[in-house]
Amino acid sequence: METYDLITIGGGPAGYAGAIRAGQLKKKVLCIERERLGGTCLNWGCIPSKALLKSAELYQTLQKAASFGFQCGPITVNFEQVMKRSRGVADQMAKGIDFLFKKNKVDSLTGVAHIPESGIVEIKEGPGKGRRFTTTHTLIATGCKARLLPDTPVDGERVMTSREALAMKTLPKKILIVGAGAIGVEFAYFLNAMGAEVALVEMLPQVLPVEDRELAATLERSFKKQGITVHLSARVKNIRVKKTRVALDLVKDDQTTPLEVESLLLAIGVVANTDGLLGPQVSLAMDRGYIQVDDRYESSVKGIYAAGDIIGPPWLAHVATFEAVQAVQGMWGQATPQRVKIFPSCTYCQPQVASIGMTESALKGKGIPYKMGKFPFTASGKAVAIQHTEGFVKMLASEDYGEILGAHIIGPEATELIAEYGLAMRLEATLDEVHQTIHAHPTLSEAVGEAAAAALGHAIHIPN
Amino acid sequence: METYDLITIGGGPAGYAGAIRAGQLKKKVLCIERERLGGTCLNWGCIPSKALLKSAELYQTLQKAASFGFQCGPITVNFEQVMKRSRGVADQMAKGIDFLFKKNKVDSLTGVAHIPESGIVEIKEGPGKGRRFTTTHTLIATGCKARLLPDTPVDGERVMTSREALAMKTLPKKILIVGAGAIGVEFAYFLNAMGAEVALVEMLPQVLPVEDRELAATLERSFKKQGITVHLSARVKNIRVKKTRVALDLVKDDQTTPLEVESLLLAIGVVANTDGLLGPQVSLAMDRGYIQVDDRYESSVKGIYAAGDIIGPPWLAHVATFEAVQAVQGMWGQATPQRVKIFPSCTYCQPQVASIGMTESALKGKGIPYKMGKFPFTASGKAVAIQHTEGFVKMLASEDYGEILGAHIIGPEATELIAEYGLAMRLEATLDEVHQTIHAHPTLSEAVGEAAAAALGHAIHIPN
Repeated sequence: METYDLITIGGGPAGYAGAIRAGQLKKKVLCIERERLGGTCLNWGCIPSKALLKSAELYQTLQKAASFGFQCGPITVNFEQVMKRSRGVADQMAKGIDFLFKKNKVDSLTGVAHIPESGIVEIKEGPGKGRRFTTTHTLIATGCKARLLPDTPVDGERVMTSREALAMKTLPKKILIVGAGAIGVEFAYFLNAMGAEVALVEMLPQVLPVEDRELAATLERSFKKQGITVHLSARVKNIRVKKTRVALDLVKDDQTTPLEVESLLLAIGVVANTDGLLGPQVSLAMDRGYIQVDDRYESSVKGIYAAGDIIGPPWLAHVATFEAVQAVQGMWGQATPQRVKIFPSCTYCQPQVASIGMTESALKGKGIPYKMGKFPFTASGKAVAIQHTEGFVKMLASEDYGEILGAHIIGPEATELIAEYGLAMRLEATLDEVHQTIHAHPTLSEAVGEAAAAALGHAIHIPN
Repeated sequence: METYDLITIGGGPAGYAGAIRAGQLKKKVLCIERERLGGTCLNWGCIPSKALLKSAELYQTLQKAASFGFQCGPITVNFEQVMKRSRGVADQMAKGIDFLFKKNKVDSLTGVAHIPESGIVEIKEGPGKGRRFTTTHTLIATGCKARLLPDTPVDGERVMTSREALAMKTLPKKILIVGAGAIGVEFAYFLNAMGAEVALVEMLPQVLPVEDRELAATLERSFKKQGITVHLSARVKNIRVKKTRVALDLVKDDQTTPLEVESLLLAIGVVANTDGLLGPQVSLAMDRGYIQVDDRYESSVKGIYAAGDIIGPPWLAHVATFEAVQAVQGMWGQATPQRVKIFPSCTYCQPQVASIGMTESALKGKGIPYKMGKFPFTASGKAVAIQHTEGFVKMLASEDYGEILGAHIIGPEATELIAEYGLAMRLEATLDEVHQTIHAHPTLSEAVGEAAAAALGHAIHIPN
């Protein structure tokens, strides 16, 4: 039986990154992935969806091309090409991981892994079926899959999750999206921009329920203006899937409204991928399906580690990668593994939403005194020049020393601008330090500095 | 005679920002501007040029629309609308400053200011002509204007500087741009993208002579691929302006080639605006036309301060604003004024170029041992998804502690990504701190973290 220093189960952002890091440390490492390297993120999530969103943005811009000085006649949409490009991007990135595995001498096999006991991994299904390995370290990075509704099977046409939606053949005329988290919101934006009639239903009272309320309200207004129907504090029941349509009831404020749509997209969260993973002797401590780990990412069973979505929220690819690298470094004492405290969250619709740290309501809830600074993109020369002035940067800092507690951005390139706040919070920077940093003019990033200035009453480009 | 606490001469990024800051400090302040509030930057520089560049980018994207899934028939360019939008952006931002002046109770007058002696400012020309004020503090922020060639008068059609180019009525068929600094390069990109035949001539051996050589070489290759003719280590002489064309000789490696173009755009640097500013009794220490100031931005004459382009390079709007705010705060002891050490530089062509700190050749020249990390955008999932993979991030850090010494970016959103390095250098962050900062996936900003990781041999998405 072949022996490895590390076997990672799952080839997504945690599994492939952990495997590569172990390869860099000259360890003998194997990655077992049931489908294709890259996992959900690269193949059926973050990456292909960004390609679709880029097309949607471009389509919206094309419709405004005249204001920029271009006449381009009637625009026809080749939806097949929109989807094909997205799949091509995923294919290209997946090949990239094959290449990186070779460069870092990481072995990889396709199949469904099973751990009969700590130190042994076998492949139960797939091309590698029947193979069995010993390993000193196992990293479980099997991630999550979309949560489904009971009695509403996914058929990929009438009922979809994000995965099926990323492989749509045609644009549905009328679609209802259940769940206004990042995935639901991104699809609502994409499908509406492409011409579908979109209704977005969220059980909680705001879109993007984990985001700052003011951002959520701004996004909701923008979505309504774009033509998306938004139902908050609402849910669907009595779903009946017909041949060419889905009938259901929308329940809101005790009012029930019957609706019919062509398709239903479920974006109601995720559940852990652990089916058949562990033998009966491998009894890992779990919490609601997620593997519990200590500060070194080791589970309750020695030698079995876990990282990424499988250890629970926030279910973000960048957090997963960070965790896996930390776990691997800790296995051989390269560094004391760090747990994730500060991380950005991004939603790539237009306007983009990005945040880090605490929201205003969280600060209020905890009774933490804070200062707030806000800078609208209408006051940004770059935003005006690129005709993209929707949104603002909002910064929250402690009342006493001005330590940054949270930053919330809605607007152009929000998902890139949040990076500076990430470093700021990592380094425990103060409002004053961000304010005193010279930001290039004219850039959108000036809004980051001006929001800090605003919290101090020093903003130049808005009244204080 | 009316008395002010502060009179700023010039209403550009130094003058208006300094005036607003003084207004925030409840000082009685007057800004005298000879043309329109906002100065060159807002009216005839950074801001309107970004609007043009956005149109050019869009035009290039339109030509690739089919790959994104859109057919849009033949595209016709309404050049007048391209220019009109750019002027509209400048108009809107200029009005913004009027508004901010009112909110901050800043007085403003239009005219040409003159300082007959320290503490007195009079208006010699323009609507405010003949008015005379006393002031306890004067901030000279008159900026610079384009340098001209001897015997080659600017007529706005055959011979232009950036100012006239920003008001072009029609797209020249064939244009020669003298000078490949940021302004020359941005116009070369814009005009070529819009369909002009562009030759770019630079005396020094690289485009963007102050930038890292590797970035400059990458940009040069990209420009050539885009169709721009680039002549390095070359100069023009024997310029003859005719009615419908300009004839000249291009001199390169002792070879002289005669050329004819429709227009000539001069982008050969700037000279200080001090004509008629100072009375014979006001003898300020100067260096090559620039006002010399101390650490509090005070000139050699008590009570007369200066900030922005008028105190010399780097001639950047964001540096000017910072200096003016520092100067004003120092006038009333609000804070010890800081001199500018670390600042980003941006060039907004495509691919964008942005940098901060030292270049590799500067480090080599000074014999400073350094580590280098580089991450190409081809390895970035977001860059692939938006179909914008040209370029890389390059990071330089001290060999011993990994303190960041410079960062150089060419590629998508380079001008926004540089902001994080600005904060990093301001806070004297190390490679490791940037590497350990979790960057959102998938964003272009991941390249910032991966470049740091690469310098440490830890990059996940490229072979180390």
